[in-house]
Amino acid sequence: MAQAAGITTSTDWSSSNLKAPNGKDDADLPLALHNISTGGSASHHENRLSSDADRTTSHVHSARAHIGLHPTAPIIEEHDTAEHAGNVWVKIRAVLKEPLAEFFGVLIMVCFGDGSVAQVLLSQGETTAPGGNGYGNYQSISWGWGLGVMLGIYVAGDSGAYLNPAITLTNCLLRKLPWRRFPIYLLAQFLGGFIGSGIIYANYINGINAFEGSSNLRTVPPAPKATGAIFCTYPQDDLTKASQFFSEFIASAILMFVIFALKDDGNKGQFSASGSWFPLALFFLIFGLGACFGWNTGYAINLARDFGPRLMSYAVGYQGVWSAGGYYFWIPMVAPFCGCLFGGILYDLAIFTGPSPINAPWFGLKELTRPWHAIQERKEVQQKGGLV
Amino acid sequence: MAQAAGITTSTDWSSSNLKAPNGKDDADLPLALHNISTGGSASHHENRLSSDADRTTSHVHSARAHIGLHPTAPIIEEHDTAEHAGNVWVKIRAVLKEPLAEFFGVLIMVCFGDGSVAQVLLSQGETTAPGGNGYGNYQSISWGWGLGVMLGIYVAGDSGAYLNPAITLTNCLLRKLPWRRFPIYLLAQFLGGFIGSGIIYANYINGINAFEGSSNLRTVPPAPKATGAIFCTYPQDDLTKASQFFSEFIASAILMFVIFALKDDGNKGQFSASGSWFPLALFFLIFGLGACFGWNTGYAINLARDFGPRLMSYAVGYQGVWSAGGYYFWIPMVAPFCGCLFGGILYDLAIFTGPSPINAPWFGLKELTRPWHAIQERKEVQQKGGLV
Amino acid sequence: MAQAAGITTSTDWSSSNLKAPNGKDDADLPLALHNISTGGSASHHENRLSSDADRTTSHVHSARAHIGLHPTAPIIEEHDTAEHAGNVWVKIRAVLKEPLAEFFGVLIMVCFGDGSVAQVLLSQGETTAPGGNGYGNYQSISWGWGLGVMLGIYVAGDSGAYLNPAITLTNCLLRKLPWRRFPIYLLAQFLGGFIGSGIIYANYINGINAFEGSSNLRTVPPAPKATGAIFCTYPQDDLTKASQFFSEFIASAILMFVIFALKDDGNKGQFSASGSWFPLALFFLIFGLGACFGWNTGYAINLARDFGPRLMSYAVGYQGVWSAGGYYFWIPMVAPFCGCLFGGILYDLAIFTGPSPINAPWFGLKELTRPWHAIQERKEVQQKGGLV
Amino acid sequence: MAQAAGITTSTDWSSSNLKAPNGKDDADLPLALHNISTGGSASHHENRLSSDADRTTSHVHSARAHIGLHPTAPIIEEHDTAEHAGNVWVKIRAVLKEPLAEFFGVLIMVCFGDGSVAQVLLSQGETTAPGGNGYGNYQSISWGWGLGVMLGIYVAGDSGAYLNPAITLTNCLLRKLPWRRFPIYLLAQFLGGFIGSGIIYANYINGINAFEGSSNLRTVPPAPKATGAIFCTYPQDDLTKASQFFSEFIASAILMFVIFALKDDGNKGQFSASGSWFPLALFFLIFGLGACFGWNTGYAINLARDFGPRLMSYAVGYQGVWSAGGYYFWIPMVAPFCGCLFGGILYDLAIFTGPSPINAPWFGLKELTRPWHAIQERKEVQQKGGLV
Repeated sequence: MAQAAGITTSTDWSSSNLKAPNGKDDADLPLALHNISTGGSASHHENRLSSDADRTTSHVHSARAHIGLHPTAPIIEEHDTAEHAGNVWVKIRAVLKEPLAEFFGVLIMVCFGDGSVAQVLLSQGETTAPGGNGYGNYQSISWGWGLGVMLGIYVAGDSGAYLNPAITLTNCLLRKLPWRRFPIYLLAQFLGGFIGSGIIYANYINGINAFEGSSNLRTVPPAPKATGAIFCTYPQDDLTKASQFFSEFIASAILMFVIFALKDDGNKGQFSASGSWFPLALFFLIFGLGACFGWNTGYAINLARDFGPRLMSYAVGYQGVWSAGGYYFWIPMVAPFCGCLFGGILYDLAIFTGPSPINAPWFGLKELTRPWHAIQERKEVQQKGGLV
Repeated sequence: MAQAAGITTSTDWSSSNLKAPNGKDDADLPLALHNISTGGSASHHENRLSSDADRTTSHVHSARAHIGLHPTAPIIEEHDTAEHAGNVWVKIRAVLKEPLAEFFGVLIMVCFGDGSVAQVLLSQGETTAPGGNGYGNYQSISWGWGLGVMLGIYVAGDSGAYLNPAITLTNCLLRKLPWRRFPIYLLAQFLGGFIGSGIIYANYINGINAFEGSSNLRTVPPAPKATGAIFCTYPQDDLTKASQFFSEFIASAILMFVIFALKDDGNKGQFSASGSWFPLALFFLIFGLGACFGWNTGYAINLARDFGPRLMSYAVGYQGVWSAGGYYFWIPMVAPFCGCLFGGILYDLAIFTGPSPINAPWFGLKELTRPWHAIQERKEVQQKGGLV
Repeated sequence: MAQAAGITTSTDWSSSNLKAPNGKDDADLPLALHNISTGGSASHHENRLSSDADRTTSHVHSARAHIGLHPTAPIIEEHDTAEHAGNVWVKIRAVLKEPLAEFFGVLIMVCFGDGSVAQVLLSQGETTAPGGNGYGNYQSISWGWGLGVMLGIYVAGDSGAYLNPAITLTNCLLRKLPWRRFPIYLLAQFLGGFIGSGIIYANYINGINAFEGSSNLRTVPPAPKATGAIFCTYPQDDLTKASQFFSEFIASAILMFVIFALKDDGNKGQFSASGSWFPLALFFLIFGLGACFGWNTGYAINLARDFGPRLMSYAVGYQGVWSAGGYYFWIPMVAPFCGCLFGGILYDLAIFTGPSPINAPWFGLKELTRPWHAIQERKEVQQKGGLV
Repeated sequence: MAQAAGITTSTDWSSSNLKAPNGKDDADLPLALHNISTGGSASHHENRLSSDADRTTSHVHSARAHIGLHPTAPIIEEHDTAEHAGNVWVKIRAVLKEPLAEFFGVLIMVCFGDGSVAQVLLSQGETTAPGGNGYGNYQSISWGWGLGVMLGIYVAGDSGAYLNPAITLTNCLLRKLPWRRFPIYLLAQFLGGFIGSGIIYANYINGINAFEGSSNLRTVPPAPKATGAIFCTYPQDDLTKASQFFSEFIASAILMFVIFALKDDGNKGQFSASGSWFPLALFFLIFGLGACFGWNTGYAINLARDFGPRLMSYAVGYQGVWSAGGYYFWIPMVAPFCGCLFGGILYDLAIFTGPSPINAPWFGLKELTRPWHAIQERKEVQQKGGLV
């Protein structure tokens, strides 16, 4: 089911339709729906289910279908041999392959992102550093989050590498990602943020103690020696609530708008950014959001990156994580969803010409009057596209 | 009309000539004119027109032809189905697809570019920032504009991604881009700059009030707490008018010279920079112009990026946007055109061996004596190349 | 045995199985084991051995086999002609090709890495520098190590480009790299670090004399004008031994986890990072470790990069290289091995679905009860995969 | 002779052997010599000469052959039509195509490189800059030279893009680049540096006047307000002559060693850096030399980049350009040649397995005893490889 570029090793054609010959994952919507229009993949799909039957149990299949995943995990088939089948962990992993990928993707992302803030904040002004002024500056944080997202995407790989509940939700609404995947992805992404920030806390605990002045103090901005901003975002002092919201909203909208543009093979001109170029383009996108939209509220743009670490910092004893900035904490939970939806809808309205509810008659709202029909249609499309 | 890399889904061969099998857009001049010389695309073109007739109205076709666009918009055909055809917005979008792409490309570019200046300027010296010295330094601005252009190119995609009236004009003159596209592209690019800078103004309005000292003050350099330079460029104090002009001229000339080199598949040696590498190369090019030619006049090199935001800042109440720097405002409107033309002509004279008026007898000026003949010839070439 | 991309010049098909048509090296485990499962490469292999017999001596073959290398060095065959065969150095080089590649890869890596620290440290605060504040800052060091690793990988090329004994060991344990290669790679990598840091010492000896205050002084942190940190890492003062260990451990674990993800063609989704993208991804990975995990202990994460230069600095007279930081020196020797093993095992447990002992029944530990059988099986797999 | 990727427009097969189907230039040695060993290109070559006869004059052919270039310039054939043939400039350009490419490549490189030094030096400490501390720092200079080389390579393209006499010389000695090309390339590269630095001088003349304090003063380091270092390199004060030489020598050796590794398709493992990746890898290589080897002597590593601008600065009135640093000026003229030769020979000795005199018996020195035979052999190889 996986082929090294240029070397096809699979002898089972039916199972090779999950990945196109050039290694692209058909499960990605725009490509998948191309397949639908050729009408060729449905029969492959049935073949796959039967040929799968003898290598993974039907239990795994139904568990995966339950959470909106394709019954067959994207696993290299020749390695998934009989001797593994009895292993409980292998079964669990087969069921949760994509959520595990999201979990580790967010974990790696948050380790680099929060780690960069920790290093810059805690080493601030240290004269024994090479160069005499600490171990990094604000730009290091743009690097940290940018390359954290890039490497997180590489780690997540097969799951779609959303790494962000707001992006996942927008893909459910506009790109027919199964809604049933949303809760399990959300949970995995949140846990990735929680654990990832915990690793950074453990790594820099000596430095945090020294910076706060005591191992009992754990403060958040605007306290003068606060270290809470290592883990989650806190707004600038002079911001109105509307500006707090707008700042997260507009950054999230740009994030989603550009991601949809990068993935839109119908609007690439000569410049393809899907496939191998995507992680690098995301590095630049996140770097840019940090350099250009990072001042007001710290570009949270992601519930998993902000709420996960916030809860972790609350758990280890930080004071005021919820009340700071006028109970700001809900802004980076809500605004990214609004912003990503707005950005996604705007892209579909203005540029996207592929299949999107926005491009359907009445902007797809007509379907709300006959929900049962809409659900059936959606299911059919997802099955044909190899998503479930 | 669009193919996922390696997966051809189109069943209509005639319509696939707008994009080459590897996903490259033939509408790009150098490639298109290769096609002309093989004489093979003309018949495809007629086929396309007839097969298009039943899916988009002839109204759209003629509207597009009127503004110099190819009658058929580069839209994935299977998605442009009958049920959309009645939607007025879908029709408008089909007519204005390329100008919309330019609009959003410039908007994204200016959001990142102006956003980076705003963040660096407004957060200057803030000691509560991680690292203790603001949220960025001058280099952040090189990043902002560099990646803004890169991401803007990805967003613009099918339009050619010029994002700059001076580059558009030079392509009209030297690469046979239809002249009729120039005004609509210019308008779209200008509006992108206007709206993009307005988003940044809205996002940072609290910070601007705090920096200026009052919500009524809106000043431009050399006022001590001026924020006008967030949006458009103002020259250094010690510059003569000639140096102001030369600085913009030389940066624009280098911009156009290098872009033509990047796009010249006849001079690539082993190092192709057209296609997927182009946006990344542009990141380095714009970063470089910011790091090396940014001091004198702020490397405007683009009417859309300078005049659009300048008008926006005038509209929201900035004082002196026109008179500052000895009525400097016209320099970044005029010099980029002169510079890009000079750079383009120099490249064609010195290195380019493809079809350019510069390489025609009498450097193409002979054609001026028989304008009717020249127009006819130009039209023929454009039609054969699939441009109109 | 090597082909320029797209141009196959070899007339000996049997010898072309070491490299796939697209220039990828089959010797890399994941790809090689694909080949095994198709059962096609074994016969090629025998052919190769016989056809090799007349161009390199059997002495070279057996010497290479002795240190765990494939009997035939990956050398362009048409150049390895009879007139070279008599040259002793050519024979030595044929035997030691991969260790030489590791040696030079680490040497280049350490030249850039240690060089960046030297330049930033020694030029600190120099007001005659352009910009008025030295020749670089902490971020230059992230660049130096990041691009040092990237360029080191390009230089090492055919050896697998591990450049790090801990990564080599993890590949021996989890990716069936022959154990016999480990000692010779370790030695080569160590020597690369020793010589590379010696070059930097020679290059900056005037600056070191000036900074220390005398050509007789050679001090290490926390001495006020210490230059020992140019060559190897010293921990922050406030760190417990546990934090020292944890910091190196977690950075090494992330290093190995992400490298395994980058190389896992079974979990790449749409985003392949193996092949040509790998060195660039490693640049970002190492840059990120420097920006996010560099403060506590200086992200040694590599015995060759830390112990090699440490011994060099001891040899040229630095005082206290062993006792500094509470005899910290053993941490960057031991922790990277523990961390890389942990990161590799975690990846195999959580995400990897290819052939790994971790995915075998009883996590491969069962094999320990019948070591002879395990060794035989391992040998077979390696021979089939073209590794020995 | 040139093909858009994937679209072959040429109908003349014989002329397509200068570029391989994937757009790679066979004139690059390692690839070209592959062709030789297959023995297939010689006949193509004769065909080309005859078919060329009717489109460019034999005058152009012989002029090109005289300066060591292939008789036929790498020009897209369908554009080189009869109506151009009469144009004198078109003839000159056809003769000097590759030297012109080197000229403009170095010009662009020096514009960005010297421009970045100028901006950082002249704007030093300017508080009205965004961020309040000038328009860049030392790192901007690493960016400027790094991306200058990258963009210069794109501009130079077909010439081989050496941009450096020392690299050209090493390719003549070790990679059979015709010796007759050396003087014309050297001249073109030198002029590129001269003119490029002149553009920067013109662009920043107001700033230079302000910084020096008068339009009559033009000083070089160690004068307190010297601007001479914008154009060419001056050593640190505390350096011995030996250290000056060693610093340039070692940086040049690393430069050549890594470039040979990047271009060596016989040692690429999975990581190809020739072709499209080469310019980006060079960005990192030059950035690294600036960040790690830039302090002592400013990493000139290139006669064209140092002597060209030095002469320009002497011409416009700088005092002491020759005597500064103890008549240091000859170091960056001589050391790069020694270093590049050393680095190239070391690579060929230690890693390269392709055709190099170093890998011939007696390290190729035997040929010195029969020079006539050596010249004949060299000519044959070059003709077979399509180089002359």
